[in-house]
Amino acid sequence: MARPYPVGVFAPVATTFTSDGSLDLERFRANMEWYATSSLDGIVIMGSNGEYVSLSPDEKLALIEAGVKAVDGRKPIVAGTGVESTRGTIELTKAAAELGANYALVVTPHYYKPRYDKAAYVRHFHAVADASPIPVIVYVMAAYTGVDLPVDTVVEIAQHPNIVGIKDSGGNAPKVAEMVARTPEDFGVLAGSANFLYPALCLGATGGILALANVAPDACQEIVQAFRAGDHERARATQFRLLAPNAAVTTRFGIAGLKAAMDMIGLHGGDPRPPLLPLNDAERAEVRRIMEEAGILARA
Amino acid sequence: MARPYPVGVFAPVATTFTSDGSLDLERFRANMEWYATSSLDGIVIMGSNGEYVSLSPDEKLALIEAGVKAVDGRKPIVAGTGVESTRGTIELTKAAAELGANYALVVTPHYYKPRYDKAAYVRHFHAVADASPIPVIVYVMAAYTGVDLPVDTVVEIAQHPNIVGIKDSGGNAPKVAEMVARTPEDFGVLAGSANFLYPALCLGATGGILALANVAPDACQEIVQAFRAGDHERARATQFRLLAPNAAVTTRFGIAGLKAAMDMIGLHGGDPRPPLLPLNDAERAEVRRIMEEAGILARA
Amino acid sequence: MARPYPVGVFAPVATTFTSDGSLDLERFRANMEWYATSSLDGIVIMGSNGEYVSLSPDEKLALIEAGVKAVDGRKPIVAGTGVESTRGTIELTKAAAELGANYALVVTPHYYKPRYDKAAYVRHFHAVADASPIPVIVYVMAAYTGVDLPVDTVVEIAQHPNIVGIKDSGGNAPKVAEMVARTPEDFGVLAGSANFLYPALCLGATGGILALANVAPDACQEIVQAFRAGDHERARATQFRLLAPNAAVTTRFGIAGLKAAMDMIGLHGGDPRPPLLPLNDAERAEVRRIMEEAGILARA
Amino acid sequence: MARPYPVGVFAPVATTFTSDGSLDLERFRANMEWYATSSLDGIVIMGSNGEYVSLSPDEKLALIEAGVKAVDGRKPIVAGTGVESTRGTIELTKAAAELGANYALVVTPHYYKPRYDKAAYVRHFHAVADASPIPVIVYVMAAYTGVDLPVDTVVEIAQHPNIVGIKDSGGNAPKVAEMVARTPEDFGVLAGSANFLYPALCLGATGGILALANVAPDACQEIVQAFRAGDHERARATQFRLLAPNAAVTTRFGIAGLKAAMDMIGLHGGDPRPPLLPLNDAERAEVRRIMEEAGILARA
Repeated sequence: MARPYPVGVFAPVATTFTSDGSLDLERFRANMEWYATSSLDGIVIMGSNGEYVSLSPDEKLALIEAGVKAVDGRKPIVAGTGVESTRGTIELTKAAAELGANYALVVTPHYYKPRYDKAAYVRHFHAVADASPIPVIVYVMAAYTGVDLPVDTVVEIAQHPNIVGIKDSGGNAPKVAEMVARTPEDFGVLAGSANFLYPALCLGATGGILALANVAPDACQEIVQAFRAGDHERARATQFRLLAPNAAVTTRFGIAGLKAAMDMIGLHGGDPRPPLLPLNDAERAEVRRIMEEAGILARA
Repeated sequence: MARPYPVGVFAPVATTFTSDGSLDLERFRANMEWYATSSLDGIVIMGSNGEYVSLSPDEKLALIEAGVKAVDGRKPIVAGTGVESTRGTIELTKAAAELGANYALVVTPHYYKPRYDKAAYVRHFHAVADASPIPVIVYVMAAYTGVDLPVDTVVEIAQHPNIVGIKDSGGNAPKVAEMVARTPEDFGVLAGSANFLYPALCLGATGGILALANVAPDACQEIVQAFRAGDHERARATQFRLLAPNAAVTTRFGIAGLKAAMDMIGLHGGDPRPPLLPLNDAERAEVRRIMEEAGILARA
Repeated sequence: MARPYPVGVFAPVATTFTSDGSLDLERFRANMEWYATSSLDGIVIMGSNGEYVSLSPDEKLALIEAGVKAVDGRKPIVAGTGVESTRGTIELTKAAAELGANYALVVTPHYYKPRYDKAAYVRHFHAVADASPIPVIVYVMAAYTGVDLPVDTVVEIAQHPNIVGIKDSGGNAPKVAEMVARTPEDFGVLAGSANFLYPALCLGATGGILALANVAPDACQEIVQAFRAGDHERARATQFRLLAPNAAVTTRFGIAGLKAAMDMIGLHGGDPRPPLLPLNDAERAEVRRIMEEAGILARA
Repeated sequence: MARPYPVGVFAPVATTFTSDGSLDLERFRANMEWYATSSLDGIVIMGSNGEYVSLSPDEKLALIEAGVKAVDGRKPIVAGTGVESTRGTIELTKAAAELGANYALVVTPHYYKPRYDKAAYVRHFHAVADASPIPVIVYVMAAYTGVDLPVDTVVEIAQHPNIVGIKDSGGNAPKVAEMVARTPEDFGVLAGSANFLYPALCLGATGGILALANVAPDACQEIVQAFRAGDHERARATQFRLLAPNAAVTTRFGIAGLKAAMDMIGLHGGDPRPPLLPLNDAERAEVRRIMEEAGILARA
């Protein structure tokens, strides 16, 4: 039986906070409603864009519960459940499954990185997959964690039948090629950023988990649909058009940029949790300009 | 009034687990009793060696409470209270103070490191210091966090009256010199590893938080005492003698090496939490050999 | 008038040495003859694979002269002429042009990298392009130089009419996309390694300078031709088939691996100049196995 | 017989250029005359500060010849003779010896760094030392080369009787300690920057090769003399006083900063070779301010 690997465009949604910095589940549910009726193929709660490292265990459970209920089966829900210890990751993964999440996204442990070799990572991911009631997606985010799992390690991790895919945010084309070529056919390789979605698809990636999909799901889908239709010209042109807005909500302005863009299109973005800081006015205007220029936001 | 900056040799103690991986507070208390009557100047609970990143919030509070009670005022207690968010750090710092900790050791937030500039770090540490009932020590651990606070940032952070010192594990001599030369006199710079304790003292550091002090407090103190007595020959000779055992419990074998060494001298070490793995027999024998050769462990 | 930008598959040829370590021009000419009648679109003398950093100025001139004469106009010749100083680069570029080279490949200066900002790089490449009688190709090789020119810098460098392209060996897909999208249409972006040739072409690259093309020019051409014909399936399949042999002659075994592979197909490889070391027997057997498995070398 | 290891304060002198960018040997000789009568213990021609990577082989020989003649035995001359290949390094080292240099400073080869392991470095340095008529000093400059020789490699290299010392510019205190503790007694470890001269001496270093010594030889000597006299207070105070001027002529403003400072004290600095750029007026004023504040330059 084939593994139920992830396919298409997933948005790693933002976490919303009230003005005093508490979790704002009401606004979160409103966002979920919008996403549930969008062109997205799935929703990721508590990816890096969800500020998962800044949430307490209770807040994490509350978010998953709220998200699952709000989406109510209209899209698959991926819950970010990775923490540093194997024990804690298993605990949170089980809880997420119980709350109705469809997949667990498990980031590489990274604090003691000089001590984590191939054996340690294989053991960790396999132990989590053994214990998890739901399929597991490996999450590699080297810019934040400092850990870029080598392909050999990925290949061995991918042997586990309950590990169905990997999100890699690095954009390294040879690595994407190697991962697709050397993992099983029913193992999904997902682009971790919209700035290499099209070439990743060319290499056999099955989709992406894309910050930009939070504010431009249709444009991200356009790349996927054009690619599937064999229209490489359109796929590439759309890829190029999305480079600037993608940078605006990722490398250039980070989560604060993404949240500002959400505010602009009518979703609830708001401020990130410190030490992340919101954009200043000039940065906000720049995000708006870029979004307008790319046709994501109508010109005022 | 001078800030109560930290002085002397501090041990960042290990966290003990039962065979099923739960917190083992009984063995932790036994270790604490030994440390309380040792030559140490202070005890750090939940430094990196305490596997703080692998503990739940409840476990953290239980450890601080157990440590404070066991030591019962015989040594100052430093509690590691840094997490990624400012909000979470303040919450844990307040709880630690309430439980009786004497200092808070606050690691640099690091997950969103491309977004954290000088302003973000200054704001974070000052907000924590404003809210903390106890003095704060900044913790820089670049090998694990990927963040090496620049001296300019440290200098600005050090202006806050409730921030009394910094632990830097990097071993960069010019940085130690700059930090001592450019921070107030009553701001303590602490070596973060025993492999540069003596040169750090020469440059004006006030002491160190040293993994090796968990198993060789007297030898670490010998460097400090020899330095204070102006006996540079002895300080340097002791420094050289401790290089190999220090590597064994830090860079070479990590926390598992430290815990193995603890077992050897009659303390409770045990296994770390996965994905950290315990030493194999050959590694354990090597640690023993190094400890014996350095005179830390009597030859069998 | 459009710039004569480089298109297709270029091989960065090896430099041959006699058994006493001197330049072996005879064997070099024999290799050139083979390449001149191959499916290659061009030949690069003194890229990184040509050990240019280990050659004296006189040896460099001798190589260019020998290569130009041997090829005798059957393929365009690109000469690697970059050295650390602007002055030295200009001098060598002029000499290469006089000897008949068709393009100059100019690596980023890199020794004083902490001092080289965008302005310094723009000024350097523009000064070289101003003085050069032949078109200039920028060469970015971060794995060896530690310098990965940012896209903004590339975009500004590319404004010069005598700079016709860039070879980037990094494999970063978003960077390839940005470079193609933001440089003029008649500026050629070349893949610097065969492990991302196909996705680079998808993104608008015009070809590649590929170590693997030294021993498998036809296979590399197959990717280009399949891509041009719109046969993405075949392009991707060929890309996957070339991953292992490409690694064998680059990241896994380096120049010694490439030279061993050359020996195997009947070209003159030989030993690299120390401190580079030749392969041992086991490594050589592994290269052979990989080449056979990929169909580059007929099974014995 | 003990190896003639280097002791004391060495200045890695700048290379002087005429206004058209050619070598200016006349001004170079004038500088040499000043250094020959200074408090320096030795002179290094063609260290990194001498822009050795931007000089042709002929220019290198001319510089060594001019330096040796000008100094005329009043100080030992160290010539930087390292290039990428073993062959080229041996050739230049022999030529330098023939011209009268007393030591050869040999930088780590670094271009093909992913291929250079411990065996490759040991073989390279031992081959050079075997062939060299003069004692060899290993040169580690990780900020420029990207290569930070591990201590184990240094220890093995140091077994060769014709390798008498190492200059390491890294400032890593544990590494200095390990190098001194694990190499023979007659192997000299030299600080590669004045910002850690004092702690290096405490750890057993025998001196330093210091950019700052070009413009402040007496102040650098003050650290050494105070240390030898057991006056740690004065050594540390001088160390602190020199932090800012040292940064000005190294990390902050680089070779251009050093050359500007030379101009200020009456030596011939001038402009570096592009792509290095001279300081602008504001930077030059800042260097002057720092030099005055540190008492290196009398206030105007």
